[in-house]
This record gives sequence, structure tokens and C-alpha cells, in this order.
Amino acid sequence: MLKCQKCGKTYEKFRLVCECGGLLDVVMEFKGSFERLLKKEYLDVRRYLNFLPINEGVLPKLVLPITPTVEMDVENVKVLFKLEYLMPSGSFKDRGTYVTISKLKEEEIKEISIDSSGNAAISFALFGKAEGIKVHVFIPEHTSKGKKRILKLLGAEIHEIKGSRMEVHWKAREFKDAFYISHWYNPYFLEGTKIAAYEIFEQIGEVDYALVPTGSGTLFLGLYKGFKEIKNFEKAKMPKLIAVQAEGYESLCKRSKRKSKLAEGIAIPEPPRKEQMLKALKETEGFCMSVSDSEIDRAFNDLISMGFLIEPTSAVVFAAFKKLLERGEFEKGSKVLLPLTGSGLKVI
Amino acid sequence: MLKCQKCGKTYEKFRLVCECGGLLDVVMEFKGSFERLLKKEYLDVRRYLNFLPINEGVLPKLVLPITPTVEMDVENVKVLFKLEYLMPSGSFKDRGTYVTISKLKEEEIKEISIDSSGNAAISFALFGKAEGIKVHVFIPEHTSKGKKRILKLLGAEIHEIKGSRMEVHWKAREFKDAFYISHWYNPYFLEGTKIAAYEIFEQIGEVDYALVPTGSGTLFLGLYKGFKEIKNFEKAKMPKLIAVQAEGYESLCKRSKRKSKLAEGIAIPEPPRKEQMLKALKETEGFCMSVSDSEIDRAFNDLISMGFLIEPTSAVVFAAFKKLLERGEFEKGSKVLLPLTGSGLKVI
Repeated sequence: MLKCQKCGKTYEKFRLVCECGGLLDVVMEFKGSFERLLKKEYLDVRRYLNFLPINEGVLPKLVLPITPTVEMDVENVKVLFKLEYLMPSGSFKDRGTYVTISKLKEEEIKEISIDSSGNAAISFALFGKAEGIKVHVFIPEHTSKGKKRILKLLGAEIHEIKGSRMEVHWKAREFKDAFYISHWYNPYFLEGTKIAAYEIFEQIGEVDYALVPTGSGTLFLGLYKGFKEIKNFEKAKMPKLIAVQAEGYESLCKRSKRKSKLAEGIAIPEPPRKEQMLKALKETEGFCMSVSDSEIDRAFNDLISMGFLIEPTSAVVFAAFKKLLERGEFEKGSKVLLPLTGSGLKVI
Repeated sequence: MLKCQKCGKTYEKFRLVCECGGLLDVVMEFKGSFERLLKKEYLDVRRYLNFLPINEGVLPKLVLPITPTVEMDVENVKVLFKLEYLMPSGSFKDRGTYVTISKLKEEEIKEISIDSSGNAAISFALFGKAEGIKVHVFIPEHTSKGKKRILKLLGAEIHEIKGSRMEVHWKAREFKDAFYISHWYNPYFLEGTKIAAYEIFEQIGEVDYALVPTGSGTLFLGLYKGFKEIKNFEKAKMPKLIAVQAEGYESLCKRSKRKSKLAEGIAIPEPPRKEQMLKALKETEGFCMSVSDSEIDRAFNDLISMGFLIEPTSAVVFAAFKKLLERGEFEKGSKVLLPLTGSGLKVI
């Protein structure tokens, strides 16, 4: 069931926003304990099906892995790199796409449109291709060549838009020939990304901090929701959420004058779920921080040296981690989650 | 322990071949049942550590996922696509590299050389980078640009060789400045790849056929070994192994005159473990078959349409599957494993 954040109206059918214009959230009730609800016969995303608002009869054909978590000690802090880039389309977006596609199949929707800086477009193009759903993708003209080549190979209908990421968004909304499923608004998308929190809880247990690349907030809000559900199941503590943003595109902290060129995946100055993110920061006693392109570049090289083949946007969390470590933000022995969101293979 | 196939001599230390020139195999004894030996606290490769000849103190930092298996019904046959391309470096080679690197760490070997058509080189370059091991890679000059770019980014010392894949191999063997760890000979490599069979057994249970892209045989022999070990544990039946080779590079069936240009990953006309592979084919009542570039190309497009972002070499198994299906090779309801070995993101 979908429920409006503003007026409380509920819906059974897939829609992006409430009639009143308010944002929608998925509301679910769980019967049973965390342990019992796990489907232990599966070693992939289906292990967590009982926590998802989807019907087993209409699952996407493509199956998502449980992404590994790599533990490293850095100056007495336990860093947990979660390898979200090892997804079928090369980014964490596949989590949100997985749940969304299952709803589209349930409602027999056959043609969709989406706006994206690249990764969400590739994810929907891939799953759409596998399911016979036609996908219109609206992308900025400056999207990397590698990403454009993949979109072509996948047979997506590409609409290249001159202008900012926000202009791409408006063009996609104006397009009326397909069902628009913006991952910024789409409440089912967050249901998919929340599963990263469930995996971490099974792999590691409680964590103290989660640093999350934050543009539109699809991963940030998904993790928030996942950790919160686990808290209700297991009385586990919520990690402090730290939203990491790129210079010039801060929406949750002070906007810098300089604009990042490296963090294309989170260059979203006006995310629709901003208020929801601010609330999550407050509730978890977390905060927002910004990193510069030179910091991203150094962190990117550090991560490659550690063996993580990621794209530059994914490096923002390690850039932020290094700054916070220097400031003495983390207590000795604390556990810090750094999801690595996108594969470098698409852009190298 | 390593044991020579020819003279039976055993070794404790890492080496490629016996003093007598014979090939070496890892010999291990397992105490306990399959179920009990699983390390269920892990949802990644470490779940199978008890089946590996490695020491938990020297594991590589990078952790491998359990790759998902996608089930599809094709004309009453259950096809099992195993997504081996979702590994950290984009190919199944990471399985062999994982075990090899752990032995290198144990023996404190800091500089290695390897010859490869691309994927094994990238895998060793990645893991080497993460562990501070210097990696010399010998690759054919015609290796795809994407793969070369990744090798550069990973700081591998690149030796581009004009000539055939076999000439690349001989150049690497002549190079004496580093420890040569050819994945063709290296017995530890097969210990890594065998884990794919363990995963399949946990995910699906018994399978009836396994179609495997076969050049040097690292996946073919690894799967053979894994299924054989599981047979001993569980009295499970061995699948019929079908080695799929590309035109012009057949080593286990009749050599074609035409030479494949698409299947660069298995263009290995003289694999050192050929006799061992023929034995495995005989023992499992399997066979070798060859596919042409036009068949590979069609199968590649089919797989992309199904949502598998793979490289052309990986399509050989689906090309072979379609031919065998047409011939009526598979009984109704049989389970056919098709490992999809390499990511398309590196070459698109």
C-alpha cells in the first residue's frame, strides 16, 4: 500500500505522487521475527523477499546478488565497503529497479520513461530489455560515452537533453507517451535500496555510521528505511547517517559556489525528497557534508589502489570519510559503512 | 599439498609444474559433511573456505560475491545462467585469482608475471594492486582497448606481444624477473573456480549438464573438480560436461579451418591440461563441441536481450545450447548450467 506523507491518502496501484501533490511511501506490516522472515533457501536478493512489497509470481527474471562487504581497519576504525557496483547493470540502482519492475509487471505496464544521469537509465534499460518493457531514457548530453554506448546496445529510446540535470528532469516529466517512473519520486525504488541495510545487518550486525552519496537520496532514504525496519525487528541501533554531497550540488548543507564535474551521479540540486532526508539526518543525529573534486579525485585513486573498480561519484564517501577521520569524528573501534555505488567499467 | 599427475611427487610450496615436468593438482582431505563444512555465517565466497586450500589469516582483502543463478525455461529445459561476470574485475577469473593471491601472500611473493587474453590479466592486476604485489601482464597486441585502459589504471606493467596467444604465452615464460603464475598450469587457480560448482549445488542442487567455455580449461576443470568433490560428499550425480570451443581453436574436438575472431577469451589451441580435460569429458560421458562466429554473434544478441551484459566469448555456451536443443540432446525437464563468464562492460 502507498500512503501520502502530506494528506495520508492511500493507494493500492502504482503511482508517483498523491493527488494532493504529496510524496508517497510504501507502508508494510511484518508478521514474524527478522530471522524467521529470511528466506534462507536463497543466497541472493530473494532471501529478503518477505520484506518487500512484491508478489513472488511477478519477479524480474534477472536476479541480484547479495553484494560483498569488505572490512578494512583504518586507524582503529572499522571501514565497511559494500560493493554495490557488482550489480547486473553496474550500480546499486538495480535494487530499486528490481522492485519497480516487479510492480510494472504486476500492473502490465509496457512502456516507461525515466530521467537519469546514466546509472538509473542503464538499470531500467537492462531490466526493461529482459522483460519486454520499452524504456525511454532522458539523459544529459554530457553523459559519458561508455554509458551512452551501453544504452544503445540495450535498445533504449534515448532522449539527449542539453542543459542541467534539472532540465533533463523537466523534459522527462513533459513527455506523455509513456508511464513516467522517476526514481526520485517512485516509492518502490526505496524499497529496493533498503535491502542493502538488511544485507549489512546479516553480514556485519549493527553499524555506527553510514556515509552515503546523496543526490536525489535513493540510497540514503532506502538505507534509512531499511535500518529503521531492522531497528523495529531487532532493537538494533540506528547508525548515524551522513549524507555526502558534491560541491555546487549541496541540497542538505550550504551550497558551494564551485561546481563538481566528477560527481555526475549526485549532481541534483533540488531533490524532491529533501525534507524527508533532513528529517532522517535529524532523527539519526547525522549530518550532511560536502566534498570537492580534488578530494574526490584523491579518494578515487585511493579506492582503485585498494582494488575497487568504481566510478568517480562513488569516491565521495571515502573523501568524506578521510576528512571526518582527520577531524576525529569516529570513536576507536567504530564501524563505518561506505557503500560503493557504481562500477568504473562503464566509464574507463 | 600439491601432487604430480605423472610421477606422484608431492610439494608443500607453490609451484607451477613438477620437477619431472608433470602437471600438479591440489590434494585435500575433508573431514565432516558438506552441510557442516559450510561456513553459514558468510554470504560470500568465504562460505566455502573449508573446501579451499587456504589459510584464513592470509585471505585477499577483496571479497567475492556468490554469483546469482538465473533460471529460465526454454522449450521444457531448465536453463541455469550463472552470472560469473558479476565479479570484482568483471570475470570468473577472480575465483582462481582469489585462491592464488592467498598462496602468494602466504609465501610472501611480491612480484608476479602472467599471460592472458585480457580477463586473467585484469583480475591479477586488480588483486595485485590491492595487495601491493607487482604484476607483469603479457597480453596480445589485439587485446580490446577497454581492457588495456583498465590494466593501465591498475598500474600493471604491460607487455604487449605481437603474434598469437601461444606466442604471448612463450614470451611470458621466458621472462625471468618475476614469479610466473600462468593460470593454465597453476593448480590453485582450479581450486578457486571449483567453488562455482559448490555455489550451484547450494543454489539449485544437482544439474544434468554443464556447458563450459573451454580454452585453457580453468573453468571447465574447476567445475569438474567441484562437482566431483560434491559427489563424494553427497552422492550427488555428476553433470555431463560439455566443453564449448570456438572455431579454429578446438583442442578437444576436430580443428576447424575458419578462425573465430569473437571468442578471444578461449582462443587457446594448445592448452597444457588437455589430457586432463579429455579424461573429464570421458568420465562424465560428455563431449566437446565447436561454435562459429555467426552463431556466437546471434547468441550474444540473444543474451543481451535477456538482460545479460556479457562479452562475446561468454556467448559461446548459449550458441552451443541452442544447437543441442535443436538436435534434441536434452530430455524434458533437464537442468542445464550455462556459466556466463565475462562482463560486457569492459569491451562495449
